[in-house]
Amino acid sequence: MYKLVMIRHGQSTWNLENRFSGWADVDLSEQGVAEAKEAGRLLKEAGFTFDVAHTSYLKRAVRTLWHVQDVMDLMWIPVVTDWRLNERHYGALTGLNKAETATKFGDDQVKVWRRSYDIPPPAQATADSAPDARYANIPVPLTECLKDTVERVLPYWHDVLAPAIRAGNNVLMAAHGNSMRALVKFLDGISDDDITELNIPNGIPLVYEFDADMKPVKHYYLGDQAEIAAKMAAVANQGKAK
Amino acid sequence: MYKLVMIRHGQSTWNLENRFSGWADVDLSEQGVAEAKEAGRLLKEAGFTFDVAHTSYLKRAVRTLWHVQDVMDLMWIPVVTDWRLNERHYGALTGLNKAETATKFGDDQVKVWRRSYDIPPPAQATADSAPDARYANIPVPLTECLKDTVERVLPYWHDVLAPAIRAGNNVLMAAHGNSMRALVKFLDGISDDDITELNIPNGIPLVYEFDADMKPVKHYYLGDQAEIAAKMAAVANQGKAK
Repeated sequence: MYKLVMIRHGQSTWNLENRFSGWADVDLSEQGVAEAKEAGRLLKEAGFTFDVAHTSYLKRAVRTLWHVQDVMDLMWIPVVTDWRLNERHYGALTGLNKAETATKFGDDQVKVWRRSYDIPPPAQATADSAPDARYANIPVPLTECLKDTVERVLPYWHDVLAPAIRAGNNVLMAAHGNSMRALVKFLDGISDDDITELNIPNGIPLVYEFDADMKPVKHYYLGDQAEIAAKMAAVANQGKAK
Repeated sequence: MYKLVMIRHGQSTWNLENRFSGWADVDLSEQGVAEAKEAGRLLKEAGFTFDVAHTSYLKRAVRTLWHVQDVMDLMWIPVVTDWRLNERHYGALTGLNKAETATKFGDDQVKVWRRSYDIPPPAQATADSAPDARYANIPVPLTECLKDTVERVLPYWHDVLAPAIRAGNNVLMAAHGNSMRALVKFLDGISDDDITELNIPNGIPLVYEFDADMKPVKHYYLGDQAEIAAKMAAVANQGKAK
């Protein structure tokens, strides 16, 4: 049985402030740290173990991973990092409050920017949310729709993650709402329309099981299912004016 | 100019209790955490940056690395882990108090066990300090002298670290007193006798600079030199009865 465990980072300081994060490198909130530790506890309790972890260039994902590693006594596994697992780039919306943006532009417009498959938010004038050396040799976008994110996440799946899983490795991936939505869309063959309604909660391990052809046969979130449903609804409602 | 920055983990709970650690997976003490953060601050202040980090399978080294990464805003770099950077295996002395062991066996015997190049401590009956899945496919020793440690550290230098540095990467290595002594012995051509007197302080960045043939041209510790000298003397004195 082949498996991939994905986890969206715990609550970040900008999740807490209801701001669009994208590639801004914000850290976990106190609640986010607690969520990450609880995810580690759930994984350990359920008997999971990992040989390698993959994560993004963003510290809210890395720190989530570190807490999971710490709780699971897996600090010794290698950590592979790649910008292709980064959150979707939110363009000129980066840093703005989601509810205020909805008040200004309307709930429907914000839902389009948040969830439409192929309409990106307005672009940044310059790549000012990613001025860091880590991005020196990569094509930093000025904005992304989910389709753009899919186009960078899927090569990482095909070239790196799927071969590692097929080779027998237990792989943990700590990433972001939209880099995970991009992968889940592909894995489950979700349509461009239906992906709009898919919301991924913070800090909850999402387990995918695959057959020998790496076709998903099953997926589930670990933990209290009612609590997870409430968290998914909360994510869906973040972009509303009130 | 090619460089390698090495750092011995900050003080561990067993350093604090003056116990032989070896492959026992003890965590950092509060002081060790502070030392790791200070090392990150010194490296950042001195303008260092890193593309990749290498560390052992032991959490005192990994956690030291994580604090350095956090302070330097380098959580995004990949972390390669390898058992060959582990501390020297301390055999049947693992877990024993160094001063009590010296009282029982004499300062001279303990110095032989701690610092002789080719005389290992008494072997463990079974590899009970390393029962973990992480060691499933590696030749876990029952004890090691420094010569044994050299024989596993040098292949890692020649096959992994030196090529990475030659390829232009800024490499940070977070490791242990004896895996670092093993590498330093080779780099500086220190004799089997003289290596006995070389002590490496906890939590202080050690910078090596190399020419194009990867011959070391210079090395130095970052930080307050008097404090570093005091720390090195303290390491030397750990194995004395009083």
